[in-house]
Amino acid sequence: MPRPTSAARDKARRLLEQALGPSKVLTGEDACAAYAEDESEAEGVTPDAVVLAETPDDILAALRVAREASVPITPRAAGTGRTGGAVPVAGGIVLSTFGMKSIKEIDRRDGVAVVEPGVVLAELHAAVEAEGWFYPPDPNSQADCCLGGNVAENAGGPRALKYGVTRDWVLGVDAFLIGGQRIHAGRRTTKGVTGYDVTGLLVGSEGTLAVFGDVTVGLMPKPEHVMTLMTLFSDVRTAGDAVERAVAAGLLPRCIELLDGPTLEAMRRAGNAIDARAGAMLLVEFDGDERTCERDAERFGETAESAHALEVLVAQDAAQRARLWSARREMSRAVRKLSKKKLSEDVVVPRHAIGALLEHVAMLGERERVRHLTYGHAGDGNLHVNFLWDDDDEVPAVVRAIEGLFHEVVRLGGTLSGEHGIGVLKAPYLPLEQAPELIELQRDLKRVFDPSGLLNPGKIFPAAPHRAC
Amino acid sequence: MPRPTSAARDKARRLLEQALGPSKVLTGEDACAAYAEDESEAEGVTPDAVVLAETPDDILAALRVAREASVPITPRAAGTGRTGGAVPVAGGIVLSTFGMKSIKEIDRRDGVAVVEPGVVLAELHAAVEAEGWFYPPDPNSQADCCLGGNVAENAGGPRALKYGVTRDWVLGVDAFLIGGQRIHAGRRTTKGVTGYDVTGLLVGSEGTLAVFGDVTVGLMPKPEHVMTLMTLFSDVRTAGDAVERAVAAGLLPRCIELLDGPTLEAMRRAGNAIDARAGAMLLVEFDGDERTCERDAERFGETAESAHALEVLVAQDAAQRARLWSARREMSRAVRKLSKKKLSEDVVVPRHAIGALLEHVAMLGERERVRHLTYGHAGDGNLHVNFLWDDDDEVPAVVRAIEGLFHEVVRLGGTLSGEHGIGVLKAPYLPLEQAPELIELQRDLKRVFDPSGLLNPGKIFPAAPHRAC
Repeated sequence: MPRPTSAARDKARRLLEQALGPSKVLTGEDACAAYAEDESEAEGVTPDAVVLAETPDDILAALRVAREASVPITPRAAGTGRTGGAVPVAGGIVLSTFGMKSIKEIDRRDGVAVVEPGVVLAELHAAVEAEGWFYPPDPNSQADCCLGGNVAENAGGPRALKYGVTRDWVLGVDAFLIGGQRIHAGRRTTKGVTGYDVTGLLVGSEGTLAVFGDVTVGLMPKPEHVMTLMTLFSDVRTAGDAVERAVAAGLLPRCIELLDGPTLEAMRRAGNAIDARAGAMLLVEFDGDERTCERDAERFGETAESAHALEVLVAQDAAQRARLWSARREMSRAVRKLSKKKLSEDVVVPRHAIGALLEHVAMLGERERVRHLTYGHAGDGNLHVNFLWDDDDEVPAVVRAIEGLFHEVVRLGGTLSGEHGIGVLKAPYLPLEQAPELIELQRDLKRVFDPSGLLNPGKIFPAAPHRAC
Repeated sequence: MPRPTSAARDKARRLLEQALGPSKVLTGEDACAAYAEDESEAEGVTPDAVVLAETPDDILAALRVAREASVPITPRAAGTGRTGGAVPVAGGIVLSTFGMKSIKEIDRRDGVAVVEPGVVLAELHAAVEAEGWFYPPDPNSQADCCLGGNVAENAGGPRALKYGVTRDWVLGVDAFLIGGQRIHAGRRTTKGVTGYDVTGLLVGSEGTLAVFGDVTVGLMPKPEHVMTLMTLFSDVRTAGDAVERAVAAGLLPRCIELLDGPTLEAMRRAGNAIDARAGAMLLVEFDGDERTCERDAERFGETAESAHALEVLVAQDAAQRARLWSARREMSRAVRKLSKKKLSEDVVVPRHAIGALLEHVAMLGERERVRHLTYGHAGDGNLHVNFLWDDDDEVPAVVRAIEGLFHEVVRLGGTLSGEHGIGVLKAPYLPLEQAPELIELQRDLKRVFDPSGLLNPGKIFPAAPHRAC
């Protein structure tokens, strides 16, 4: 989509200030520049105006102005996305719901919460856990990311293995369409099959179908107890083997995080003491009542040993548990120090193919002379394959490695994204996974919600000439 | 939708016989009459032709003929639906995928099965359990219903409490559109956020968006052990209280089935010995490893006693377990004997409101002098409220009772259907729950898949003039 004309941009700014007053509208390069990017490598265009919405009416006003001035509008919450979903690729309006931060309701009887889109996930976690309830989705950005973005991207996280992703917990959502409609989709009850699953369609639509207001999520009783294990293996094949055996034995930890050899090496360099023989680590967590956790942890340990684990370490208390997870968190920092640039690809393969995929990544790294490391949620086959580089002249090799990765993922029966979405960065690769008929159907669905193509353009779909209507 | 003209019907029959040969096409009143109805009270029109599809190409051919002859086409698998989803309301073609019965794959490594739409659910259960895997959805019609219908209606069942409904287990689906497109939506991996959730949109679309071919479902390891309890209470309020306490305490049985006083009375009349003081029964089932089952069953028993249960009975072996469930199954037979006609409404309310809803049902029954009884999946608030009658002149009172029920369900924050769908029978009531904007949006989605409105007309949406395009 081309940038709007300067007349359209002026009109949009004027209408926004009329409708919302100056306190809710940012204009000018300096104020707007921060809204050109998110936490991905996607490059945006500084928006012409930023709306700081505080109410549903503000959202509707911003959408109306975009429509009337015919400028693109890009919804945004915390902007912690990893594929550019919140990046305005053609300028226009950025519509931030970051300021809508009310937890409107926690229903202590039925386990339901209603939250505004700017509520930070960690704050929702804390609020419901204080009441004895639990909201499972836990993307690693939980300290910063907002529910609105979680819903837009269908965020996952380590605990998705046992508890599923955001879509599995969103019961209903208020959605604002660019045509001016306010839709309340979904329900408050756990079950319900009245009409099409509009809620599920909106979750994961990456801000391309509607802007989210209140989100109704289901909760579960907070697990009594959590138990964490760390196991080391000589290589990722044996670690993958242990995962497969454990799942086949009916063990269902709430997470199984895998760190590969290059990741462990980066952690060693950053000063973490990790057994020199280890070429893979699994960080495993069980929850439930204490006795079951202990029993499951023991069985997982035995399974790991039968798969030739080098070491099995069970955290004996909260402090040890925190230490194990801090190693996982420090890992991200250690990895960031390794290179100036990195792309973290969030692919999924069937569980049994984890070893095969990682061998292929090693081959690609060698062939293209690109550094790489992989970690992620091995229990559900969702791996974050990172390619690292310093100089721009390495980019073509990185791109070849990424393309090689995507081809292999699809060949192994996997999918291009497990939890980060397609956004800008993966849009060109959508046809690798999906047939033209399916992509065309999704473009048609998009047109139902956004006939003029003004809502978050440039996302999900590969650039293509607009079909004649 | 009016019935097609006799010229259109002749054309459809001729084209079908040309495309598929006589062995796959039924014509004539006698052969087609059985396809005018399903297991609901919905009244259909005998179709002009029935296609017995054996392959995806047969499905595409039938859809093409419907398009070319401009006659309605209604997909059907086993026809066990309870709201008329498979009933042809305007004649035309019935497209049966009942004959597509192959379990094409059971992936023993990753826990994935690929099945044709005519596979009977109980056969899928048996096949995957023989391999140590488990497919949780278990509508009570499992001995007869087919996967294609389960997907179309997003079928539930008792175990939905712990394991969710069909949508939670369908990873991908082959879908055939009336425009001739063959879409493969979804994935084989547990996680995946590539593009919109087209799979989730198709599941539960009641045959109004597409016809289903192969269905890819996720499996879980078969639980080691199952433990069944029966508890009796003096009334539904105390039974509901026990359910609320148990869930709040973090107990998650795989099912909690409630039978109310009138249901127990029907069972007594049919010869079952049930404590005369009992006005409600809960049938509860835990699964997992043996120790956890025993411990959870014990805790549930204690919770029930603290909620003034009259009796707690734990099945000590498989024979006792079978006996408890056979009482639940015989119940359906006992209920059928009570009256010539019955309508079973499949509503959902928030768990805490079960008692309030059942008191309202009792009031409606008294006010309208309509017999009623209720059973269902109390753990997730999904109740089957049955109204019974013998003579046609009772129908207006039954309709008033049903309308009173739906109003109360919506007032309590519930939904009109938990697992049976909207179909024909509940279509007039959709606006009770959903606002006009949401209904209009869904009509627009329907038009993307089926612009001419020929695919399974008369379902979900209340009759309304077609919007000018």
